[in-house]
Amino acid sequence: MTLLSRINHLLDSSGTALTVSAHCDLPCGVYDPAQARLEAQSVKACMEKYNASSDADFKVRATFIKEERSDLVKHHLWVLWTDYFKPAHLEAHPDLHDLFWSATKTAGDAKKTNDVVVADKLLAEIDAIAEIFWDTKK
Amino acid sequence: MTLLSRINHLLDSSGTALTVSAHCDLPCGVYDPAQARLEAQSVKACMEKYNASSDADFKVRATFIKEERSDLVKHHLWVLWTDYFKPAHLEAHPDLHDLFWSATKTAGDAKKTNDVVVADKLLAEIDAIAEIFWDTKK
Amino acid sequence: MTLLSRINHLLDSSGTALTVSAHCDLPCGVYDPAQARLEAQSVKACMEKYNASSDADFKVRATFIKEERSDLVKHHLWVLWTDYFKPAHLEAHPDLHDLFWSATKTAGDAKKTNDVVVADKLLAEIDAIAEIFWDTKK
Amino acid sequence: MTLLSRINHLLDSSGTALTVSAHCDLPCGVYDPAQARLEAQSVKACMEKYNASSDADFKVRATFIKEERSDLVKHHLWVLWTDYFKPAHLEAHPDLHDLFWSATKTAGDAKKTNDVVVADKLLAEIDAIAEIFWDTKK
Amino acid sequence: MTLLSRINHLLDSSGTALTVSAHCDLPCGVYDPAQARLEAQSVKACMEKYNASSDADFKVRATFIKEERSDLVKHHLWVLWTDYFKPAHLEAHPDLHDLFWSATKTAGDAKKTNDVVVADKLLAEIDAIAEIFWDTKK
Amino acid sequence: MTLLSRINHLLDSSGTALTVSAHCDLPCGVYDPAQARLEAQSVKACMEKYNASSDADFKVRATFIKEERSDLVKHHLWVLWTDYFKPAHLEAHPDLHDLFWSATKTAGDAKKTNDVVVADKLLAEIDAIAEIFWDTKK
Repeated sequence: MTLLSRINHLLDSSGTALTVSAHCDLPCGVYDPAQARLEAQSVKACMEKYNASSDADFKVRATFIKEERSDLVKHHLWVLWTDYFKPAHLEAHPDLHDLFWSATKTAGDAKKTNDVVVADKLLAEIDAIAEIFWDTKK
Repeated sequence: MTLLSRINHLLDSSGTALTVSAHCDLPCGVYDPAQARLEAQSVKACMEKYNASSDADFKVRATFIKEERSDLVKHHLWVLWTDYFKPAHLEAHPDLHDLFWSATKTAGDAKKTNDVVVADKLLAEIDAIAEIFWDTKK
Repeated sequence: MTLLSRINHLLDSSGTALTVSAHCDLPCGVYDPAQARLEAQSVKACMEKYNASSDADFKVRATFIKEERSDLVKHHLWVLWTDYFKPAHLEAHPDLHDLFWSATKTAGDAKKTNDVVVADKLLAEIDAIAEIFWDTKK
Repeated sequence: MTLLSRINHLLDSSGTALTVSAHCDLPCGVYDPAQARLEAQSVKACMEKYNASSDADFKVRATFIKEERSDLVKHHLWVLWTDYFKPAHLEAHPDLHDLFWSATKTAGDAKKTNDVVVADKLLAEIDAIAEIFWDTKK
Repeated sequence: MTLLSRINHLLDSSGTALTVSAHCDLPCGVYDPAQARLEAQSVKACMEKYNASSDADFKVRATFIKEERSDLVKHHLWVLWTDYFKPAHLEAHPDLHDLFWSATKTAGDAKKTNDVVVADKLLAEIDAIAEIFWDTKK
Repeated sequence: MTLLSRINHLLDSSGTALTVSAHCDLPCGVYDPAQARLEAQSVKACMEKYNASSDADFKVRATFIKEERSDLVKHHLWVLWTDYFKPAHLEAHPDLHDLFWSATKTAGDAKKTNDVVVADKLLAEIDAIAEIFWDTKK
């Protein structure tokens, strides 16, 4: 049984449907905050590996890979904000704009530091967005 | 409770840990077949929207968005194959190479058609890879 | 005398400094809404050329070039919103979030049509953002 | 009043029209040397920030962001040279090829140094190109 | 024996060394006009396949793949022109600028047509550049 | 006489045809392992220049340019593996999958070191792939 089928099985038995849905302007209708979260986990891992290393070249690589991954976090969040969320969602969640503004700013902050507290803040903000996202799917 | 925490809660209670882990050559250690699957769902959605439409411009857009999304499927699968999987995994799953070769070829085939059967084959092949992936995480 | 020096000369003589400033997370401090505006003009030009043509291949090209240019509009606007604007700006311009949300959604709409009214709306929204931007520079 | 309308107003009153015009092979007809200039300003800012900092990680980031921005300068200049300028322009401005060759080489040089003299040379060369560009618009 | 060793063997026996050399601003010193030529062959193949097909979707795909490949031709040629060639080469080959200007313009023309004559002109211009390139290696 | 015509002339006289053929999913039919090899030579040159330098900024640049070039090696190899090679080729060359898996893993290893032995291993693996490639063209 695949992970997704395991998840679906577990969620089905708990009465909750797992829906994933749109990330292009067709629109194809497939959006998922998991894309931003995976890149944010990578940002955090780059910080941890940077902090644990004493190899100068490795630290250089961790620094620019973190830069790229932070950009991907921003991109995935921006697409969600503009393309998935609609005025009706904003009415139900008036803090939507601030959440996205803050999370994308935190992704920018993550480029400038190797303090995992910043990555944890980023992950928490993405989780807050994901909670709203999945709430709109109910 | 966020979706991920809900999933973790459910999986936890069923004795299975949800681990997501590495998609860059640092390596950051964050890999997940869900990235390829999301793009493959988008490929399928492009086909369905193409088939349901009679607007020539829309069909043009569906065609090249599908092309891009199929490329992303290939990219995510190639990264998994080369960067995540190790010789020990190949020993345990001797069909690993063929699975990835076939799945990436199917992603190429998906560019050439709007027959959803091809997208369904692609999704099934990604699911088979995901099953092996999560098996290696046990 | 170059255009920019001519502009600076004219603006100087009118008591207004022309400052351009940051579009990367260094941050380098160089931002300018002109980047989004140029791409939006290109989007409008693609529509006009599409409408004036009866060559099927040309229309296909106009369609996907417009798609790319609309993506660049979105990208430049997102960067401005997240990276340039600060909480103090939001206080002074409480409609900032809505302006950017609407403008980036209009850039998405521009992919789906060749009605220049949509491109004109996009240009007007970028101008409204530019007005706030230059206001913060005073 | 937006900046562009302010500029247009000032230029109008001085008898000079501000025209911006093509940066894709449609061609959409929207070209502007300002795109290259903005990136060159970013290159210079990266150098200044590098020189003012004593943080090793920050210097690494300034180094590769400068590399990317220099590439964008080259790209925007190459597009102008090949796509905008026509044989008649070359006749009127026989140094056109040398100007572009030198400016794009300077953009390459800017990757290898944090000496702002190189960035200033790049800006001056872009200004010389802009002067010819706007001359062809008269 | 690999192709390259076969070529080297044959060229060695004919008294000519096969040298390949730089395509980044490090500079790494590895340049080769073959990169532009391969993409130009792809441009020509796209035209031939377009002309031989009566499938509308296939023609759409051939059109935008040709657009991308033409962009790659331009990019590889621009890099060669700016990064590889030096003033001494220009003195020995005074038509260098015109050759590159014409070849990159032809790559732009190739986007607008499926007339293989244009692709053949592009290939011939790249061959003329390659001839100068290899002459500088003697 | 251009290099390619010289090569063709030499190979013709030795009874061997030089054929180059496909690197997009059209498919355009133009593939050539030389693309991966050129990038691998660049990877090796980055290592050599890194080792010969004592300039910290230069070493940073060599490190991330090598990272990009290694990614291009992987990409070109992945495209060859999935798009060019067919089941009949695998039958004739049963080690095809392992060769590509190993070569792309070596390209990943090359990011983590400046030991030219790794670059030489990468070049040798690409040569082994090229040998099979040209064998299929006979």
